[in-house]
Amino acid sequence: MNKKERYDFELRMRVRDYEVDVQGIVNNANYLHYMEHTRHEFCRAAGFTFAEMHSRGIDPVLRKVEIEYLTPLTLGQVMISCLKLRRKGPRFIFVQDIFRDGDREPVARAEVTVVCLENGRLTKGDVLAQAFEKYLK
Amino acid sequence: MNKKERYDFELRMRVRDYEVDVQGIVNNANYLHYMEHTRHEFCRAAGFTFAEMHSRGIDPVLRKVEIEYLTPLTLGQVMISCLKLRRKGPRFIFVQDIFRDGDREPVARAEVTVVCLENGRLTKGDVLAQAFEKYLK
Amino acid sequence: MNKKERYDFELRMRVRDYEVDVQGIVNNANYLHYMEHTRHEFCRAAGFTFAEMHSRGIDPVLRKVEIEYLTPLTLGQVMISCLKLRRKGPRFIFVQDIFRDGDREPVARAEVTVVCLENGRLTKGDVLAQAFEKYLK
Amino acid sequence: MNKKERYDFELRMRVRDYEVDVQGIVNNANYLHYMEHTRHEFCRAAGFTFAEMHSRGIDPVLRKVEIEYLTPLTLGQVMISCLKLRRKGPRFIFVQDIFRDGDREPVARAEVTVVCLENGRLTKGDVLAQAFEKYLK
Repeated sequence: MNKKERYDFELRMRVRDYEVDVQGIVNNANYLHYMEHTRHEFCRAAGFTFAEMHSRGIDPVLRKVEIEYLTPLTLGQVMISCLKLRRKGPRFIFVQDIFRDGDREPVARAEVTVVCLENGRLTKGDVLAQAFEKYLK
Repeated sequence: MNKKERYDFELRMRVRDYEVDVQGIVNNANYLHYMEHTRHEFCRAAGFTFAEMHSRGIDPVLRKVEIEYLTPLTLGQVMISCLKLRRKGPRFIFVQDIFRDGDREPVARAEVTVVCLENGRLTKGDVLAQAFEKYLK
Repeated sequence: MNKKERYDFELRMRVRDYEVDVQGIVNNANYLHYMEHTRHEFCRAAGFTFAEMHSRGIDPVLRKVEIEYLTPLTLGQVMISCLKLRRKGPRFIFVQDIFRDGDREPVARAEVTVVCLENGRLTKGDVLAQAFEKYLK
Repeated sequence: MNKKERYDFELRMRVRDYEVDVQGIVNNANYLHYMEHTRHEFCRAAGFTFAEMHSRGIDPVLRKVEIEYLTPLTLGQVMISCLKLRRKGPRFIFVQDIFRDGDREPVARAEVTVVCLENGRLTKGDVLAQAFEKYLK
């Protein structure tokens, strides 16, 4: 891991064996699950759970994911799933890196673009931006 | 397959490779997914989709599953997922068998017990029983 | 939780939001995933990882699951997944209970029957029994 | 769907209800599952199953996915999952589009980059290129 890289949030998770496919490596779609869970835990840590946002009519929705697969995870391995948040107008960009625990080998790197719907309509994202103010400076 | 056995519904599906785990066989939890999908397709064929029932405040909910794993499915195999419906008072029992296509080798056999909630409360199941009248004679 | 109940292993996990379906509750198949992960973490704690057993030609295989669904988990909730091990000849029975964290409300209860294959053949289970000796007294 | 667009392969699938999350739409990671299954069915149709390739020591491995989410799928909907194949040296690019059945509304669009390992080593992809010769003209 680049020492200069600073993340807004980090989550440690162990691979669950059912996430590993017949090639002996974590199936590609599961990294999106790990990254989603990391975003939601980040929101929780920032005081805004996914459930609360949903019940207030605010729904963050994925628009785009660009993910590179670098080194696969396998049975029993532990990952550090890291995230930092950027804003480009109505779009929130989560830069998400997963590293293998221990040797910090890069596993996957993604840019995840989220927009914010309010009662089904695209917003400028100001409510979300205010909620995450301290991360967006 | 026992030739005397008659089912109310059958669904043909091919294993998706991501459902196979590192042991080279379909992961145990996925058979519950196959069986749920079979029940929902049965409901659709009977004219009651899961979505419609949900929007009318009727929610079938699982109470119990007893499943035996007989012969595992693996990469690329095709299954026939079969179902018959029984009623015991407020409980609906789905007897569900999965066979391997071709040689009809039994793959898994389950009894799935479902009850019916209406606006969150346990019902006697009469609405559902009426909907599935022709299968419950 | 019955205070007299003693478990051989306990694992704390938070529901991941993608495990919750449109009914707003954790999908039934995911409890089997939680329970499998709990068994594998138990094995790891006992010094026998799933990966090591597999590479030595020993494959624990599910024969039967009986699971009762008691109170559903939902978004953001935390569970305690508990397990105790029994042996009946060649069969190993995992009694697995999941409780909601905090109020200890029972969520699901299962009996999971596992047999042990060695190089593809059913064994008497003596190797596994020796490995888990201290839990089987 | 753009009428000028020609695909090498198309697969029709119905959403399974467990793939829909609490927001009422198919969870983002499941589109990667749909696309993987489409690639594997394409390989099968072309005469090269994933299982056979794996047993011959040839492992196609994902390097990169760029996916845009356009219109979400929901309960009971049917999709047409389309694919065309391109080659850039050692990299195979799958252009994958998912459309909603009926109105052909675009659901998701991805570029999936695959490289080919042979016994664990990166290859120039010539074996795969030969296998898919007729699609790569």
